[in-house]
Amino acid sequence: MTFPADPSGRRAQVVGTGLIGASIGLALRARGWHVTGRDRDPAHADRAASLGAVDALGTDAAADITFVATPVSTVAAEATAALAASPGGLVTDVGSVKAPIVAAVGSARFVGGHPMAGSEQDGVEGADPELFEGATWVLTPTASTDPEAFARVRAAVTSLGADVVAVSPERHDTLVAVVSHVPHLAAATLMGIAAEGAEEHAAMLRLAAGGFRDMTRIAAGHPGIWPDICAENRAAIVAALDRLLVALGDMRDVVSAGDRAGLLHLLDAARTARINLPGRVAQAESLVEVRVPVPDRPGALAEVTTRASALGVNIVDLEVAHSLEGDRGVIVLVADAVGGERLRADLAGRGYRPAVQSLV
Amino acid sequence: MTFPADPSGRRAQVVGTGLIGASIGLALRARGWHVTGRDRDPAHADRAASLGAVDALGTDAAADITFVATPVSTVAAEATAALAASPGGLVTDVGSVKAPIVAAVGSARFVGGHPMAGSEQDGVEGADPELFEGATWVLTPTASTDPEAFARVRAAVTSLGADVVAVSPERHDTLVAVVSHVPHLAAATLMGIAAEGAEEHAAMLRLAAGGFRDMTRIAAGHPGIWPDICAENRAAIVAALDRLLVALGDMRDVVSAGDRAGLLHLLDAARTARINLPGRVAQAESLVEVRVPVPDRPGALAEVTTRASALGVNIVDLEVAHSLEGDRGVIVLVADAVGGERLRADLAGRGYRPAVQSLV
Repeated sequence: MTFPADPSGRRAQVVGTGLIGASIGLALRARGWHVTGRDRDPAHADRAASLGAVDALGTDAAADITFVATPVSTVAAEATAALAASPGGLVTDVGSVKAPIVAAVGSARFVGGHPMAGSEQDGVEGADPELFEGATWVLTPTASTDPEAFARVRAAVTSLGADVVAVSPERHDTLVAVVSHVPHLAAATLMGIAAEGAEEHAAMLRLAAGGFRDMTRIAAGHPGIWPDICAENRAAIVAALDRLLVALGDMRDVVSAGDRAGLLHLLDAARTARINLPGRVAQAESLVEVRVPVPDRPGALAEVTTRASALGVNIVDLEVAHSLEGDRGVIVLVADAVGGERLRADLAGRGYRPAVQSLV
Repeated sequence: MTFPADPSGRRAQVVGTGLIGASIGLALRARGWHVTGRDRDPAHADRAASLGAVDALGTDAAADITFVATPVSTVAAEATAALAASPGGLVTDVGSVKAPIVAAVGSARFVGGHPMAGSEQDGVEGADPELFEGATWVLTPTASTDPEAFARVRAAVTSLGADVVAVSPERHDTLVAVVSHVPHLAAATLMGIAAEGAEEHAAMLRLAAGGFRDMTRIAAGHPGIWPDICAENRAAIVAALDRLLVALGDMRDVVSAGDRAGLLHLLDAARTARINLPGRVAQAESLVEVRVPVPDRPGALAEVTTRASALGVNIVDLEVAHSLEGDRGVIVLVADAVGGERLRADLAGRGYRPAVQSLV
């Protein structure tokens, strides 16, 4: 990697200084970066400056990385503009939908991203340099992404304390439809049903205990961001809603038929899955290095990193090393011993020749 | 009321000494009651005794009130047995389904109940005498319930710190299907969808942020109680699931059609309802007494109390006073000034002749 170990002197740009953009600015500045920021609303940018989230207001043509943190409907245009304005810089974003944005931008210097922390709807006042500590941050490399661009964006994001999960843009959109967008729509729907019928409303809602309150809490958020998200991720959301409708119909039939064994089976499976829901990632005890030579194979980086994520292998560190033989390279991943071996075996079955060695 | 102000010397019986039964025992004993308890599993009863939840083990034919706190499928039989064993005593229960139980017991001395606190699935170790402080406790009087039995059960429950909501058994079952049973089944269904597909499981679940975790938390509970609940409340649960399926289908169509205004309308309505979800009830500043003469009208008590709940009027206190004219009586309710006037106007429109007077 050509990326220097000392980050002082690195320059970043933040477009959109809401909660996420300002938190990125605070976190980068705490690590020695020079941060320039702007917002469609100049008052928001001024506020970000007074909170210490940016060094300067406006545009920085010399930025190494630009973080686009605007509403999803404007990300592609802002990212394209930033790529044009800084020919040597990388651009990433934080939008909660990825495939349409990545396709629209279509640059090897653009790496789609989505930190699973905070919310686009919260304001700059909640900005926090530690917002990303231990949070999952999705990056969506594709076959046309420059591996070095990916590695540099990954290093910057990791330096903020986030755990990177790499998946394809399409896979990301399917995943967030299931674990974020559809749960939000389902919570709103449940709340709507409970609120139906003005007469019994008061009595009904007095009966709502903790489980219902937990389930519908997210329905209390401002709905302003959802038309854009639902428009950008329409296909995946409709597909996930269709799956939910089928599964809920099955549940209804099991209850209606008095099928006790079938009901227990469904609830047991859900219980097991919920208990196994991973929390924030713990540091692995013993780490290994997985070296994967990638001889001139398009999309190798995207394939290797998305395989790791699919296998549940937590990548602690990643580097793209260039070998002496021209444009061939080696992807070096650091993972825990069990995960590293799992990844090695999987990649070996896909025509790669990975090697594992202990770091300790 | 013939109920003495001093509770010392009153006798209660708790059948089923799990979390709820033992908490009732602890709370009653703290208020001077003598509590006898038993459990199908003698070890559970012994444990309740060692925790101080009961004074004696076994049966008390002289109990003023018996609380049946067993699984819903056994409540009706236990309540019927307790009514037969103590001809002068009242019986209530804590089951999460009411209509089949109330119909099966069919006694003027039985008042169906359901505290919205704790869970049947938690063990005696979590027993807490303050479990019901500020919690909603549903009672389900019917036209055949003895008004004095209702008032005495109500007074006992209120003395534990609970806020009583009176609704009909059928109404209760519809309400809890919507705010408790179906949300649980929906959470399990969402979790099941997210867990589908072993390959991408790991990556998907790493993306699950706070909203999804909140929504699916209840799916982590032991499923053992659900076959009974779904069997006892089958009709209401299936009806509520059908409503959810229709509403989710509408949501799907709005997203699929790109109907931004329709989506915002649905989400705005849900947000308003969620924000207005009442918390635990605050003490009213100024209280009034609503006196409702009930001249030989069957079901008057059930109608008056369920109207109060339907109107969202919090009843702080309730008493059934007997007038000098034979079997006529007066229901005396204490409520805040606004709610009291609302109830007076509503009852006046239904042929009652209620009077409101300030308590201060």
